[in-house]
This record gives sequence, structure tokens and C-alpha cells, in this order.
Amino acid sequence: MFEATKVGRSVDKATFKKQQAELRTQLLAVQRELRHTDIPLIVLIAGVDGAGKGEVVNRLNEWLDTRGVQTFAFWDETDEERQRPRYWRFWRTLPARGNMAILFGGWYLAPIEQRMLGKCRDQELDAELNRIVDFERMLIQDGALLVKFWFHLSEKDQKARLEELSRDDRSRWKMLPKKGKFHKHYRRFERVAERIIRHTDRGISPWYLIEAKDRYYRDLTMGKTLLQAIQRRLSEPPPLESPPTSGHLELPDAPGAQITILDQLDLTKRLSRDLYKVQLRQLQQELNELCWQAYNQKRSIVLVFEGVDAGGKGGAIRRFTNAIDARLYRAIPIAAPTDEEKAHHYLWRFWRHVPRDGYITIYDRSWYGRVLVERVEGFATTMEWQRAYSEINQFEEQLIEHGTILFKFWLQVSQEEQLRRFKERERVPYKRYKITDEDWRNREKWPQYKAAVNDMIARTSTECAPWILVEGDDKPFARIKVLRSLRDGIRKALKE
Amino acid sequence: MFEATKVGRSVDKATFKKQQAELRTQLLAVQRELRHTDIPLIVLIAGVDGAGKGEVVNRLNEWLDTRGVQTFAFWDETDEERQRPRYWRFWRTLPARGNMAILFGGWYLAPIEQRMLGKCRDQELDAELNRIVDFERMLIQDGALLVKFWFHLSEKDQKARLEELSRDDRSRWKMLPKKGKFHKHYRRFERVAERIIRHTDRGISPWYLIEAKDRYYRDLTMGKTLLQAIQRRLSEPPPLESPPTSGHLELPDAPGAQITILDQLDLTKRLSRDLYKVQLRQLQQELNELCWQAYNQKRSIVLVFEGVDAGGKGGAIRRFTNAIDARLYRAIPIAAPTDEEKAHHYLWRFWRHVPRDGYITIYDRSWYGRVLVERVEGFATTMEWQRAYSEINQFEEQLIEHGTILFKFWLQVSQEEQLRRFKERERVPYKRYKITDEDWRNREKWPQYKAAVNDMIARTSTECAPWILVEGDDKPFARIKVLRSLRDGIRKALKE
Repeated sequence: MFEATKVGRSVDKATFKKQQAELRTQLLAVQRELRHTDIPLIVLIAGVDGAGKGEVVNRLNEWLDTRGVQTFAFWDETDEERQRPRYWRFWRTLPARGNMAILFGGWYLAPIEQRMLGKCRDQELDAELNRIVDFERMLIQDGALLVKFWFHLSEKDQKARLEELSRDDRSRWKMLPKKGKFHKHYRRFERVAERIIRHTDRGISPWYLIEAKDRYYRDLTMGKTLLQAIQRRLSEPPPLESPPTSGHLELPDAPGAQITILDQLDLTKRLSRDLYKVQLRQLQQELNELCWQAYNQKRSIVLVFEGVDAGGKGGAIRRFTNAIDARLYRAIPIAAPTDEEKAHHYLWRFWRHVPRDGYITIYDRSWYGRVLVERVEGFATTMEWQRAYSEINQFEEQLIEHGTILFKFWLQVSQEEQLRRFKERERVPYKRYKITDEDWRNREKWPQYKAAVNDMIARTSTECAPWILVEGDDKPFARIKVLRSLRDGIRKALKE
Repeated sequence: MFEATKVGRSVDKATFKKQQAELRTQLLAVQRELRHTDIPLIVLIAGVDGAGKGEVVNRLNEWLDTRGVQTFAFWDETDEERQRPRYWRFWRTLPARGNMAILFGGWYLAPIEQRMLGKCRDQELDAELNRIVDFERMLIQDGALLVKFWFHLSEKDQKARLEELSRDDRSRWKMLPKKGKFHKHYRRFERVAERIIRHTDRGISPWYLIEAKDRYYRDLTMGKTLLQAIQRRLSEPPPLESPPTSGHLELPDAPGAQITILDQLDLTKRLSRDLYKVQLRQLQQELNELCWQAYNQKRSIVLVFEGVDAGGKGGAIRRFTNAIDARLYRAIPIAAPTDEEKAHHYLWRFWRHVPRDGYITIYDRSWYGRVLVERVEGFATTMEWQRAYSEINQFEEQLIEHGTILFKFWLQVSQEEQLRRFKERERVPYKRYKITDEDWRNREKWPQYKAAVNDMIARTSTECAPWILVEGDDKPFARIKVLRSLRDGIRKALKE
């Protein structure tokens, strides 16, 4: 694979200067054009030690208009990052549409290091690479342009470069205090790199291998490649997505086929007021203790509440939050996105609030909006909401893998009960703010919502993150079911 | 001071229920009204141990529409917070306009604790309280409504409450695992609290003292007080500001008076190309080493670059960034604010990028825009830019106090040199993006800008954060002056 990067290509200084001037002009032009598109541009810089990755980044910053360009390195993890899912540190660096991020190594650093240090085997490496492929596809399908550079040197050239760097007083200072660790194992490093590149070199996110021996050649080639990639993206539509796998967007018309998983819920379930009071107090006490235990064990908890309008989400959430110390939780009611949120992948606004170890985030409505309201109301294209299922599953896997205890509640009420509650809301003054014309309109789309919920549960109720369906017609029953599920779930998770 | 909170006020359950329903309706109404204003609402909850601060917060979350309400506690500092100026953790929690934040203790926690633990004396406490007064004034002048509650109990009642909490199985769980430490020193605590409240109880940000013995009385009084505070703020303009202290907004007309500090710069200063090359290399090498030393000593560095258009900011910044590892710095070019940024105090967009210990942030234009372009172009009112001087000085004091090494460069060129550069920019293709009609318009306001710069330097060139004025007509001279100032400044700071 790397043979083509060891042929000794070079460019003389005069040619470089001449071509550089032209290249800069063109890069600035496409950058300006990019700014008015909805494309976030991600440039990933990787390669062997001594290839001059830092120089390349400086060169890019010199050539480009630095407004809207941010550079990120990932060598120095903070505890806020360590205490969240592994990709959180990448999520927070993703550029807004029209902007650009330059990433040192990015999500490739950890797999390279893990494999080189023998901390994982090839199979595990491949599993991680699959995740990377999925992650990159998600970004690209969302409109991102991802340009990945690998800068390479032959073993001899690398040795010479590193010696030159440490000998030459004028350039010694360009090196990190802690020198690259992997150049002593050149062949092994090359094998690992090849495996990684081979696995993650996809049509929609190709790797560009660049010979790094001659600095002029290296920088010019990098710049021209980037220019071409941006030009191509500006002139062509984003790569085609594979057609949705599940063909049925609506339930077929036959009456029997319109029965969804929601119809199996026994909405007549009731709990007496007296039993409710006793159990509520008991459960709240247990939950308070369990949440402190989770805090001490540094386990974070994520609660997702979805359900029909007037399904009782707010009441259930309040019975939980009343039980626990206000210092431990944050409740995130999902409102209209801000423009910074709109300029990112739709999951970004939820990533922002992922709790640190020991803490709790309660999402009052969530990322499932994509496959519910956005699907039914047509705010998301079919492609968008169809692929959201796997994007969501992968996001939740990251949470679970990190040790987060995840709960997803669906609160269902019957159409009759919903009507009763809507009317009550219009009657009681301090409930009036909860009811809008939109609620009445949504009600007319009951069958479409039912179908969407059915699909959602079918495709995202996974073993590690199952949906808990709550029969909501009787509020006491529903609240106790929620609290009991939380108690049992947290208790079980803490024992594992 | 606290006598009035020990008279045994109480409310019976029936009255509470009745009044609560009405109160909720009214609170929701003003909250909805608030959302369409540019008022950020900050509710600060403080008081003695056992007063039920957590219960109060839960009550508020129950009464209010939780959309747009966030609760923050400050008991558990992260390293990202520790590695930045002390107030960074508060800056990041400030609500956007139309939204609300509930803060547990907020900026009062540390002073109380420090004084109780004997880690500071009354004079130092008072200095900190002065800072709080300034900080709160800044928020309020920016439009914020700040409501501060202090919940109090008599020594006897506190003792009884804490005993009840630890004895009663049903409520034991409401307590923190680590119990409040200060109730054993009730009198001393009360003395400290009184000093703090007395110092920080200002007309524009009063404390509301509430007797916390009876829960119904406590919550009802809190709710009604909050309601009134919001209603008053909605119906009245924000509190009047004192008139600007410096009367002269423009320089007087007499020719001699129009000489500013900028006229004292000798713009004919030159440096030969040969000397430039030698010195550049030497300084870059030294700066590279010094920045790594700063990293190892966990000192952060902030660079502010301001100057006339085409003053050479970009070139100077690049000579610096080329010298240092791209992993250590972040360059922030100041562009138009996002809507999240516009919804906060104007300093918020700069607070966001304050570097962690060991890192470097380069602001390419900065918070000084408030007293430069915003003043000259009339984007900020006279009140706003006049008070910005002290807001800026206080912000920079925080940086210095934290150990940040701060540099502020003003790059000046003559009108003739500016004209030459503008024309060159129009001629050279890859420089063309740098020149806009606005630059030509700004040029016509040269005298107004000069006056603004003069005032800015006069009022913000402080001993701990002096401005470095750079004669910019000759680029080599200017760049070397910037780099040498940085080298000397960092070296000196690291030795201290």
C-alpha cells in the first residue's frame, strides 16, 4: 500500500512558490463558497512520526482564511471528556455547517495506539474500525465533507528525518517533548496503519496517502488534493445513499395489519390512591439512595421520556426528580433548536447534554423526535429518518459501553383519556400553557404516530437499551411503573 | 439582621393549596411573558443547613414550565473548571435572554466556605464581596434579573430540623451523604452570613430573607417574592445606571487636543531583511521552548491582537503560531456572533474560549470591539461602551489572578501605509478576500477610531495588563517587536 509514497517525489522551491500563490487564491475562493453552503468540512491529519503533521497544519492555517477554521488535537484528555462516552470529545469538535475543523489524528489515534501497544487484537481493532466507518458515514450523509490525509515516509527517510530534527538546532524545537514512540517499530506500525487505512478507505471517505519526504511536494500535494475535494463536493451532490432497507413506510391498509405493539398494552390497569402513596414514598426513598450509590460508583444515568401528548411525561419526571438531590440531575426539555444546534448533525444538541460520570440527565423528549414528529410531519426526509434508527442505536451503544445506565420510557394513553386531559388542561389555569393548537392537530394524526412508534420500538428496542412501555391512562399506575423500572434497573446495573 | 426570620411564621395546608394554584398560574404567565423579552433570569438559592434549599429548587421546577429553566450546583468542580479563571464556571451557566437559571449558592459558596474555614480574613472577604457586587451589577446592567434568596432558621429550629431529618426514616434520604459542616458553628456562620448579605444587598440586586421553619410558608413566600420581582421587572425599565464618569466622548476640537497616544509612535522604525531573518528564527525557537515550559508549568497564555485594518495582525499572529506546536494554541478570529452568543452578555463569546492551564488562546480581535468598532459605529449605546472599560478590566484581572499570562497588542500603521496595503490587497489575488467596502468606510472614520483607541489605552492599559503599542509601517520591525515582547513577557512570568 505504501510503496507509492516512497518514490522520492519532490518539488523545487521556485515551482512551489509559483504554484502556492495560485493554490492559495483558489483555496480561499472555495472556502468562501463553502461558507454559504450547509457543508461542514473536516480535515483529518494522520501519518508516521516525523512526517511533519504539525507543519502541515500550520501551512493550512497560513493558506486559509482562519475565520471559521478550528484546529483540534486529542492528546490531552480532560476529566470532563474521560467521564463521558469515548466519542464525546469528537462530537464536541465537529464544525458547524460552512465551517471547517482540522483534526490531528481524530478518532484514528486511539485504535493505532491500542493496537501498537498490544492492548487489543486484530478482531477488536476491526470492530473499532467498523464503528469508525459508521461514524464517518453518518457525518457524510448529514452533508459533511471529510478529507483524510495520511503522510508517509520510508523507514530510512523517517530515521533520517528524526535524526535531522534532533541534531539540527534550528528545527529541534519543532518536536514534541515526548517524542513519537512508534518509529522504533516501523514495520509493525506500517502493518497496523495499512490495516486501518484499508478498512476505513471508503468511496465516500477516501484516504489520501501523501509522500512526506519533500516538504514542498508534501504541502503542495495536500493543498491541491484538498482543493479538488472541496471543488468536487461543491459541484456534485453528496454521495448517493443506499435506498432504505425497510420498504414499508406506512402500515398496509388491512385492518389487522394496523394493530401495533401499542394495542397490546392494557390501558385499563389501575392503582389505588392508597397503594400509590405508600409505594411512591418507598420508591422515592430507594431511588434517592440508589442515585447516590450511582454517584459514588461514578455511573451516569440517562433517562429518555417519550409519549403521546398529555401522556404524563412531566408528572412522571417530577415524581423522580422530587426524590433525588437537585445537584445530581439535569432535566433537558427539548425545545426548538438554536442556530448553533441547527448547524450541526441533529444528534449534536443531545450530545451536548450527555451527563458526566455520577450524574443524571433527563431528556423530556429526545433524539427520537427524528423518527416520530419529524417523520410524521415531514420535517425530515425519508432517507433522514430511515437512517436515524441505526444512528440512534450506535449513539446509545456508546452510552452503554461507557457504563451509562440508560432508560427509555414510552408513555401511552388511550385517545379517550387524551381527550379528557386536553379538556382538563384548557380548564385549569396553570395547566393551560401546556395545550396548544398543535396538540389538537397532532391528535388527528394518531394512526401515523402509532405506526411511527411501532417502527421505532421495533428498530430501537435493543437488548442493551430496551423500551419500557408504560400504560398511562391511570396516572398513579404509570408513575409507579416508571419509578419501579428505574429502581430495578439502577439496582441491577450497580450490582453488575 | 436575621431576627425577622425567627418569628415562627407559618401557613396551613389548606391555605397553601389554595394559594399555590393561583401562584402557579401567575408564575407561568410571567414566565411566558419573560420568554419574549431580552431578560435572562437568575435565581440564587442560599441559606443555612437544613433550610431545605433542595426542596425549594424542586418546588420551583414543579411550578414552572421547565422549558428554558436550568439548575446548576457548584459543589463538584471539574478539572476543566479548575484550570480556568475562578468565575468561568459561573460564566458558562449564565442563562440566555428569555431563559432562567437556578443556582445553588452560586458565587456565594466559596466566600462563605473560605471564611468559615478561616482561610481568609474579613478584609479579604470584603474584597471578594466587592467583586461580587461588580459582577452582579454587570449582569443587571446587561438586562438580567437577579433574585437572591437566603433561607434561614434559628439555631434551635436548625438543630431540630437536622435531628428530624436524620431520625425520620421517610426524610432521612433527603440529606446529602456528607452533611452540612457549618451548623455546629451556628453563631459564627450567622456572623459571616450577615457580613456577606450586608455587603451584597444592593438596590439593584437585593437579598430576600425567608424564614424556613414552616415549609408551606417558606415555599409560598419564595414563590410570591419571585413573582413580584418578575412582574416589577416586566413593567419597569431596568434600574437606572449612574451617568458616565468620563464626560468627553469625543476629543475637543482644538488641534493640539487631537493628538493622541498613537501620534507618539515613531512609525518610521525599520528593520533590515537580514536582521529580520536571523532574529525571527531565534525568537521562534525561544518561543517554542517557552510555550512548552508554560505548558509544563500549567500556565495559560492569552494573546489579544487589535489594530487598524491592514495593520498586520494576521502576519504577526502567523509568525507566532508557526513557532509553536499546533496542539498548544487555538486562534479565535472574531466573526459575527451566533444567536446563542447574542443572547448573552457581550463578554460571553470570549469567555467560551478562555484557555485551560498550559494552553494558549489567540484572539484575532477581541472584547475590545465593544469600545472600538461598536462605539464608533454606534452598535453599542454610550452607556454600554462606557461601562465596558471596567467590565473588561475586571475580566482581565480574573485572568491575571488565575495565573494566565496576558498580552494585548495594538498594531498601528500610518494612513499612507494603510492605503498602500489596501491597494496591494486589491491587486494580489489571494489577499483580495481581506479587503471589503467596510475597510474603505472605516478608513474615513480615522479620527474617531483614533480617539477611541486613545480612550481604550488610557482606561485599560493597567499595570497587570498593559497594552503593547506596535509601530506597524514596517512589517519586519512590527513582527519582531511582537515576538520579542512575547518572549520577554513569558520568560518573566515563568520566573516569577
